[in-house]
Amino acid sequence: MLKPLGDRIVIELIEEEQTTASGIVLPDSAKEKPQEGKVIAVGTGRITDNGEKIALEVAQGDRVIYSKFAGTEVKYEGNEYLILRESDVLAVIQ
Amino acid sequence: MLKPLGDRIVIELIEEEQTTASGIVLPDSAKEKPQEGKVIAVGTGRITDNGEKIALEVAQGDRVIYSKFAGTEVKYEGNEYLILRESDVLAVIQ
Amino acid sequence: MLKPLGDRIVIELIEEEQTTASGIVLPDSAKEKPQEGKVIAVGTGRITDNGEKIALEVAQGDRVIYSKFAGTEVKYEGNEYLILRESDVLAVIQ
Amino acid sequence: MLKPLGDRIVIELIEEEQTTASGIVLPDSAKEKPQEGKVIAVGTGRITDNGEKIALEVAQGDRVIYSKFAGTEVKYEGNEYLILRESDVLAVIQ
Amino acid sequence: MLKPLGDRIVIELIEEEQTTASGIVLPDSAKEKPQEGKVIAVGTGRITDNGEKIALEVAQGDRVIYSKFAGTEVKYEGNEYLILRESDVLAVIQ
Amino acid sequence: MLKPLGDRIVIELIEEEQTTASGIVLPDSAKEKPQEGKVIAVGTGRITDNGEKIALEVAQGDRVIYSKFAGTEVKYEGNEYLILRESDVLAVIQ
Amino acid sequence: MLKPLGDRIVIELIEEEQTTASGIVLPDSAKEKPQEGKVIAVGTGRITDNGEKIALEVAQGDRVIYSKFAGTEVKYEGNEYLILRESDVLAVIQ
Repeated sequence: MLKPLGDRIVIELIEEEQTTASGIVLPDSAKEKPQEGKVIAVGTGRITDNGEKIALEVAQGDRVIYSKFAGTEVKYEGNEYLILRESDVLAVIQ
Repeated sequence: MLKPLGDRIVIELIEEEQTTASGIVLPDSAKEKPQEGKVIAVGTGRITDNGEKIALEVAQGDRVIYSKFAGTEVKYEGNEYLILRESDVLAVIQ
Repeated sequence: MLKPLGDRIVIELIEEEQTTASGIVLPDSAKEKPQEGKVIAVGTGRITDNGEKIALEVAQGDRVIYSKFAGTEVKYEGNEYLILRESDVLAVIQ
Repeated sequence: MLKPLGDRIVIELIEEEQTTASGIVLPDSAKEKPQEGKVIAVGTGRITDNGEKIALEVAQGDRVIYSKFAGTEVKYEGNEYLILRESDVLAVIQ
Repeated sequence: MLKPLGDRIVIELIEEEQTTASGIVLPDSAKEKPQEGKVIAVGTGRITDNGEKIALEVAQGDRVIYSKFAGTEVKYEGNEYLILRESDVLAVIQ
Repeated sequence: MLKPLGDRIVIELIEEEQTTASGIVLPDSAKEKPQEGKVIAVGTGRITDNGEKIALEVAQGDRVIYSKFAGTEVKYEGNEYLILRESDVLAVIQ
Repeated sequence: MLKPLGDRIVIELIEEEQTTASGIVLPDSAKEKPQEGKVIAVGTGRITDNGEKIALEVAQGDRVIYSKFAGTEVKYEGNEYLILRESDVLAVIQ
């Protein structure tokens, strides 16, 4: 099992990235496209400068939308995961 | 439903971006153009280093002006939204 | 009415920007030129990491000098405004 | 009268900038040259993250040395001033 | 023995880096690949601005996944180690 | 007399800078060379976010070693000084 | 004697830097190589924003490993030293 550290979470991808028919990127469409995933594991939270541990808002099992270029891909026991910081999660789908 | 995290909000676009007849951008007009939108959902607030949660000033239903290049576009159940941080909101229209 | 958020203010321009006869910019004249405006609305203040709200020094009706390249231009009900942070205001004219 | 905000001060120039006979700038002489001025007005101080207001060390009437490229030039009622942050002041001349 | 300082840890590599058949790197695959290692020693923790010492989450003997380009390689008594900050550790393998 | 502000100090140079016979700078020798000077005046200290004033470690009369490219050269009453922040002082020579 | 300020330490080099037979640097080997040294003197510690002084972990006489490109070389009474911040020390050799 992967146990993420601090304010990190482990995500299993749900939607595939769509390939973009290339061309010059226009400023108005230059915003990063988000992706959807399912939270597999969450860290114990970040520790503030006061020594307080702030628990994560995101919980195991949540379906989340996150910024496509965030995080680090990890291959573990044949599956692919993404480990990212909670701050890279945009929203939870309810 | 999209539930944004922390100090993020979900916005539904009201005004379309205007296409700019191209040309060399002059310094005096290089300021970013803002856009208008309606707030669909707000996060629970950002947590300071003291562990305090600061509620958002912006509320669901507010019409807001925000910086055009801020945030991340999200397509959800056929609609397009923008998820951005409250700090990217310039003003509320009252 | 435009209600700016946090430590932002809404400004109505007073003096027009002067066009600069172009040429290579010399280091000694490379300082940014300020502009004058009138404060139309002010935010409720910035919130510190301690959760304290710091009221703005600038008040509605003040004539202020601000850095020309600061802020975001907003067109609202036919008028043009500038929304900027109080920290971009250099001085109040008394 | 110009009333600077926060930790800003208004300065009246005393010494003129010397024109530099151009050429390639050598590393050892690349340090910025300071200038001298007289303090015309001071802000009420910067506010820390704790909400404390820190009064300025510099007072009206002080002759100060400051970094030449700091601040913003302001023309006000026919006179030229420089508005800069106290942190750009290097020393007071006593 | 190597005793890392502060929030640093010493890692013994488990998996080798894979050589990448070169080519132009495409944006979607530009995420950094992580690596696996075993924790040999941990520092006493980072000290916050409040003077509190925050103990590490990672312990000696843990198998961890970390960002490939993080840290500094150290050759010590014929063995190769990597010294990195705990914040570069993505997850512990349990 | 020059009275430096905050955490700044005024230094009188002791050793001259050595001219470097030019050539391509090699990485291993790219570290900045320090210089020696004598402390002529010290500021009253920096003020922390808590409003505390932290007195300087360096005292008037100290001989110090500092980073060569730090600070601002000041010509005052025919003498040349260097004004720099205490944090640019590497060590005191005792 | 050299008395370093704040969180700085003075180091005497133990191992020489190895010359690298040049060539294009490959990404996977681009990590900085560390070096070994002996601690000759330590500062009194860094002062936090709360005004607390944090004593150093490293002590006089320690053999340490540090990042090769960190710090400033100092020639003092015929010997060569390196002055660097404790945060550039990776580990103590015990």
